[in-house]
Amino acid sequence: MDFAFSPRCLEFQDRLVGFMDAHVYPAEATYAQQMAESGDPHFDPPIIEELKAEAKSRGLWNLFHPNPQYGAGLTNSEYAPLAEIMGRSAGLAPEATNCSAPDTGNMEVFSLFGTDEHKERYLQPLLDGTIRSAFAMTEPDVASSDATNIQMSMVRDGDDWVLNGRKWWTSGALHPNCKVLIVMGKTDPDAAAHAQQSMMVVPIDAPGVQLVRNLPVFGYQDREGHAEVVFENVRVPDADVLAGAGSGFMIGQARLGPGRIHHCMRAIGMAERALELLCERASSRVAFGKPLAAQANIADWVAEARIEIEMTRLLTLKAAWLMDTVGNKQARTEIAAIKVAAPNMALKIVDRAIQVHGGGGVSDDFPLASMYAHLRTLRLADGPDEVHKRTIARQELGRYRKTGKSA
Amino acid sequence: MDFAFSPRCLEFQDRLVGFMDAHVYPAEATYAQQMAESGDPHFDPPIIEELKAEAKSRGLWNLFHPNPQYGAGLTNSEYAPLAEIMGRSAGLAPEATNCSAPDTGNMEVFSLFGTDEHKERYLQPLLDGTIRSAFAMTEPDVASSDATNIQMSMVRDGDDWVLNGRKWWTSGALHPNCKVLIVMGKTDPDAAAHAQQSMMVVPIDAPGVQLVRNLPVFGYQDREGHAEVVFENVRVPDADVLAGAGSGFMIGQARLGPGRIHHCMRAIGMAERALELLCERASSRVAFGKPLAAQANIADWVAEARIEIEMTRLLTLKAAWLMDTVGNKQARTEIAAIKVAAPNMALKIVDRAIQVHGGGGVSDDFPLASMYAHLRTLRLADGPDEVHKRTIARQELGRYRKTGKSA
Amino acid sequence: MDFAFSPRCLEFQDRLVGFMDAHVYPAEATYAQQMAESGDPHFDPPIIEELKAEAKSRGLWNLFHPNPQYGAGLTNSEYAPLAEIMGRSAGLAPEATNCSAPDTGNMEVFSLFGTDEHKERYLQPLLDGTIRSAFAMTEPDVASSDATNIQMSMVRDGDDWVLNGRKWWTSGALHPNCKVLIVMGKTDPDAAAHAQQSMMVVPIDAPGVQLVRNLPVFGYQDREGHAEVVFENVRVPDADVLAGAGSGFMIGQARLGPGRIHHCMRAIGMAERALELLCERASSRVAFGKPLAAQANIADWVAEARIEIEMTRLLTLKAAWLMDTVGNKQARTEIAAIKVAAPNMALKIVDRAIQVHGGGGVSDDFPLASMYAHLRTLRLADGPDEVHKRTIARQELGRYRKTGKSA
Amino acid sequence: MDFAFSPRCLEFQDRLVGFMDAHVYPAEATYAQQMAESGDPHFDPPIIEELKAEAKSRGLWNLFHPNPQYGAGLTNSEYAPLAEIMGRSAGLAPEATNCSAPDTGNMEVFSLFGTDEHKERYLQPLLDGTIRSAFAMTEPDVASSDATNIQMSMVRDGDDWVLNGRKWWTSGALHPNCKVLIVMGKTDPDAAAHAQQSMMVVPIDAPGVQLVRNLPVFGYQDREGHAEVVFENVRVPDADVLAGAGSGFMIGQARLGPGRIHHCMRAIGMAERALELLCERASSRVAFGKPLAAQANIADWVAEARIEIEMTRLLTLKAAWLMDTVGNKQARTEIAAIKVAAPNMALKIVDRAIQVHGGGGVSDDFPLASMYAHLRTLRLADGPDEVHKRTIARQELGRYRKTGKSA
Repeated sequence: MDFAFSPRCLEFQDRLVGFMDAHVYPAEATYAQQMAESGDPHFDPPIIEELKAEAKSRGLWNLFHPNPQYGAGLTNSEYAPLAEIMGRSAGLAPEATNCSAPDTGNMEVFSLFGTDEHKERYLQPLLDGTIRSAFAMTEPDVASSDATNIQMSMVRDGDDWVLNGRKWWTSGALHPNCKVLIVMGKTDPDAAAHAQQSMMVVPIDAPGVQLVRNLPVFGYQDREGHAEVVFENVRVPDADVLAGAGSGFMIGQARLGPGRIHHCMRAIGMAERALELLCERASSRVAFGKPLAAQANIADWVAEARIEIEMTRLLTLKAAWLMDTVGNKQARTEIAAIKVAAPNMALKIVDRAIQVHGGGGVSDDFPLASMYAHLRTLRLADGPDEVHKRTIARQELGRYRKTGKSA
Repeated sequence: MDFAFSPRCLEFQDRLVGFMDAHVYPAEATYAQQMAESGDPHFDPPIIEELKAEAKSRGLWNLFHPNPQYGAGLTNSEYAPLAEIMGRSAGLAPEATNCSAPDTGNMEVFSLFGTDEHKERYLQPLLDGTIRSAFAMTEPDVASSDATNIQMSMVRDGDDWVLNGRKWWTSGALHPNCKVLIVMGKTDPDAAAHAQQSMMVVPIDAPGVQLVRNLPVFGYQDREGHAEVVFENVRVPDADVLAGAGSGFMIGQARLGPGRIHHCMRAIGMAERALELLCERASSRVAFGKPLAAQANIADWVAEARIEIEMTRLLTLKAAWLMDTVGNKQARTEIAAIKVAAPNMALKIVDRAIQVHGGGGVSDDFPLASMYAHLRTLRLADGPDEVHKRTIARQELGRYRKTGKSA
Repeated sequence: MDFAFSPRCLEFQDRLVGFMDAHVYPAEATYAQQMAESGDPHFDPPIIEELKAEAKSRGLWNLFHPNPQYGAGLTNSEYAPLAEIMGRSAGLAPEATNCSAPDTGNMEVFSLFGTDEHKERYLQPLLDGTIRSAFAMTEPDVASSDATNIQMSMVRDGDDWVLNGRKWWTSGALHPNCKVLIVMGKTDPDAAAHAQQSMMVVPIDAPGVQLVRNLPVFGYQDREGHAEVVFENVRVPDADVLAGAGSGFMIGQARLGPGRIHHCMRAIGMAERALELLCERASSRVAFGKPLAAQANIADWVAEARIEIEMTRLLTLKAAWLMDTVGNKQARTEIAAIKVAAPNMALKIVDRAIQVHGGGGVSDDFPLASMYAHLRTLRLADGPDEVHKRTIARQELGRYRKTGKSA
Repeated sequence: MDFAFSPRCLEFQDRLVGFMDAHVYPAEATYAQQMAESGDPHFDPPIIEELKAEAKSRGLWNLFHPNPQYGAGLTNSEYAPLAEIMGRSAGLAPEATNCSAPDTGNMEVFSLFGTDEHKERYLQPLLDGTIRSAFAMTEPDVASSDATNIQMSMVRDGDDWVLNGRKWWTSGALHPNCKVLIVMGKTDPDAAAHAQQSMMVVPIDAPGVQLVRNLPVFGYQDREGHAEVVFENVRVPDADVLAGAGSGFMIGQARLGPGRIHHCMRAIGMAERALELLCERASSRVAFGKPLAAQANIADWVAEARIEIEMTRLLTLKAAWLMDTVGNKQARTEIAAIKVAAPNMALKIVDRAIQVHGGGGVSDDFPLASMYAHLRTLRLADGPDEVHKRTIARQELGRYRKTGKSA
């Protein structure tokens, strides 16, 4: 048992922290100003490209990709602490280092299952950071955390497949650079439960693809956007079916594990940032004759935050380590566990940080309200807490089922 | 002991519910559309004026005012259940019935402490619903829940007072019809703690009053606005000092109690609406082969919501009844208690309703995310939870202090 | 709406508080000493009979009985605050005033459904406080909160019924004065669900009745005892079937409502006592240079306790008032709600009081650990929380079922 | 980063689990019976000596001792998972393997700071399991979690020290084999805060040592006992002052870290046992037509338990690893964190297991009520949660103090 990070991981942490301190945090105000001046919530502000250039020059690029041919070649447990650091400035750092969802998952999928053409047309520009992509999975009309519920129809017609259906929360689709969607749908409703689905590569400008609207998150219009997308007789050549028809569920599982580690570690980074803000404010704001930090109720919040962050981080790192050593399937319980634990923990800390900031906490003078809104979506994205708890409970209770009496 | 509402109160409840069902709920979509089309977050959409006319014609106007000369002449405990009903559509119903904060408090203040000129120039048009008003109390630089911290300077100069300072969360100031501010400041920093403050009447277009910006709430740009306002050498004639210099704290206390009842009852109305949405969604959404409502964890949420709503409503009604029978001062503990209990209870229920709605819950397809954001501010507005708990604890622990050992 | 108690209720409160102050609280130490010296957990210490005599002489006797022929003739909402006061010293006051469970319920049942012989042989001595009784409902082998699960067999044989089965948590059966059991069982397993059960009157010394053991509560051996009782071919004459065979469920429902009010109000009394102890200790114990009460985390506990006690009391009083005005059935949701709310609230406060008392809190130097243990059973007695929440949720969700989609 | 246990640790785990399965769990019923039959809560039942012999023969003896001269020579992080396994049967396994508190701490202290005579007279028989010992630190009259509050007076008189004072929660002192106490007191009230205290070795039969009474824990009379002990002019030769006068605080710190790891890991073992019982009961008990485990609220409890156990275990293991690698002082925050996290987590799970067991859960038919009671003391023993949170918060907030504004 060894809780120390590898030297390579520590070296990347140092380098990334250096970049954050020197460039990312100072860019937050610039970013806010450029966005406000543009008047367009989906504007691509110059500061982003500057940060990308800087990150690239510092070798902080595509850190997520486990394959050294495409990225840093780090293991999940080596990348995880880097994702945490990025999460501290979640609107800037992931994009600056080309480590944003859903591109990270899409790049992994293209590198594993893409054709040469996909790699040339999409993977390379994604790796270069010159285009963006989106992932169209969730549907408004069904509980799509259960993949078998998916309704998007994909019907064979000659050499093509014809897509009809409606997706929403297609995150990234409104980014000005977004060029391609990976779309989950049903090619064979009569197949076995996990062989019905397929994933297809669809250019965003394909005829029949309509971006209906952006979905706000609380009151926020996110820059990359969460699109509702209608597919009306969209034709997709058979070559653009990833890994062959019927592989959709399998691909989904493959991208799932790493994605959750990234999300959860970023959530932990947000929690650390929120705790930092809480401590700063509590140390400087005076009420009833002393700093808030001198009040034991606020001090308790600080202590509880520290305890809960440490525990959640360890569980997330262990899930990453299990993925690295025994694989996603064996890490199933831990992966489900962090998906529940991390956002809830972070929300609690952010909420308390808001409370310490008073009116400033709910406005945009601090990043807290936005953090809260976006962390709140994480309790739903990729399945609500309840679905993940169900997974864990079934695993746990399964051991007692031999008596034939259990659920 | 009698938990039944008075016949007059029941009659008003019926009438108000009739108005809500026939006009307010159906107007929600119209309102959203008119606001979206205007492109201006502070637009005054025609539907509002239509609702106001309808409410007036139904005798549902100025229900809040305890003085029958100015309004319905209801007691606090009679008006409270009406505020709850309005809270179910908090963006429309209070304004439609001319019962919006901060106008309600301002109208009470004008009717109690205003000069004839104030009554003619501000009170009457406010009662008529032709103008709006704002209340400038909170300051960005201090913990202003402690009135003694207020920094806004009010210095005598001849027959005038000269105001300098910065306020924020001046709610209502960005409403297109807003004409007047009631401003809290310090006229005598050397007086006894509660005689330092004064409230003055300041036209919104007075020279030196600058609306610097609107403060968003979790990304929302509220129509009435939460302004940051700078006062630079604003001159106020002595006649516009309400109840004479040094009365600011006293006036604040007077408006405080009823305002909290209104806020808390509206929060309870939001909780009821959220529970209704939760139940509807849970009854119609199917996952894992049955409606969500058939899952015991979701059913537990429903039961807990019902229990907590009932308890919080009773405490709020009791606080109102105490104000009616023994006065604000004797109801101090209860008034502080509901300010903590109601928003926290409502937030919990809204959060669970969001969870049941999945992605829809955090977007604007349902009123839940907006409810959450605005209820969250209620844990800070008019003092954070912690200040109210402190009040209650001091009251409780005071009984044990005779031993000379307590806090 | 009127939250004031009736003059009669206030007069009884005063009188009861006088008795508590003058006799009950001072008797707690005596009681503990007499019990310890006896070496017998089921000993009947002399102090109890002294308190009973004193209470009787003060007209504080059988306060619970709604029928003035048998007791004080108070309504549920008038008796409720008296039960709260008794709960403050729950090991002494209820027995001292002849208001202990399960005798209260049994006396109500005898007065409503007993024969003349029952009234003479059991009801009168119970009213006089010369004997005690027990209620045998719960069974170890089934989830008996669902009355249809009950397994105790009651088979007709000539003029008698023959009882076979096992009960546990038959509270009161080990009291030295216990003379009679009211036993719930099944007379007709083939009847409609709620007509299968009957209640029968069984002398504790009837042949075939075996008190197998006492069940401890945590480590406490309660004086009145919680017996496991085996019934082996116990013969009961048909005259001792209360209200005729098949009436068991109906009788159960009748005793249910008032019993819950009593339990919940006593729980609130315990919470008040615990809060009092917490405040006293926090005001006198010094750590880190000041009394614990001066620490904001402890002060928050005090405030939260005050808020939660007030809310729970109001809900319980409303449930009592509904029972008085519209009947148990219409008060179903509220009766279920308080059964969940009151013990959980009280446990939280007692737990925090323990925390403030340090090691003393978990020992018997203060009544807190015992309160905790006994309040904890209340979350199970008469159905676990989950069953009551289920009742509430079904009621609430029923309104949405018209769509045919709900649970 | 490597979450795998060392081969040696895994080997010990296997061996210990084998012993638990073959001997310890089956002995639980025997133990209960022998204790009940003895009628003496402090009886030493034969089964204990049988288990000790068996454990010794299996090489499962003194596993806790880090020095291979005295025990297994395991690191803290190697021993921790063994303590967890022992915690699953906390009344038997630690004593069976000679790993019970407070002997473990006392043996460490004797081996580090004892004289040759101490080693011969006390350490060796303790290592052999032929005697037991106690640790007298806590005092009834002060908040003794702050060592500077300690009042026990130790005054030099010739070659002796004379002890006067009152201790309580001197755990182990009522074990029939207890021969010696290590006593903390003040030798120099005028010295610097952490040089005032000394620890002395006092035979339990020294003149002037009086065991006043045993303190029950939620009604339980523990076998080893929690004694209140009065010291009246107890004379202690200077040779029995451990490490010289003034070293008390230093010795306390040294024993502190490992002790907390042991306590917390045992708490985690109890949580695992409780979860196991919960799952078994929920899988076999049927209500409303299906096993409890098929109800989503109960399944959520299972999932939450699994998540929280995993997180708490990881944090405890990390604290152990930090102690092994950088020392107690550097692990200060983590050691405080687990002291808060582990008992609270375990209490929550045990409480839910009780709830699933109904009446059985609060009685002695299952180990749950006893677990609850004893885990509850752990939130107080060695300082209440609030003191540990204070430590963590001060550490965290210290980073922000440079501004001169913080607590």
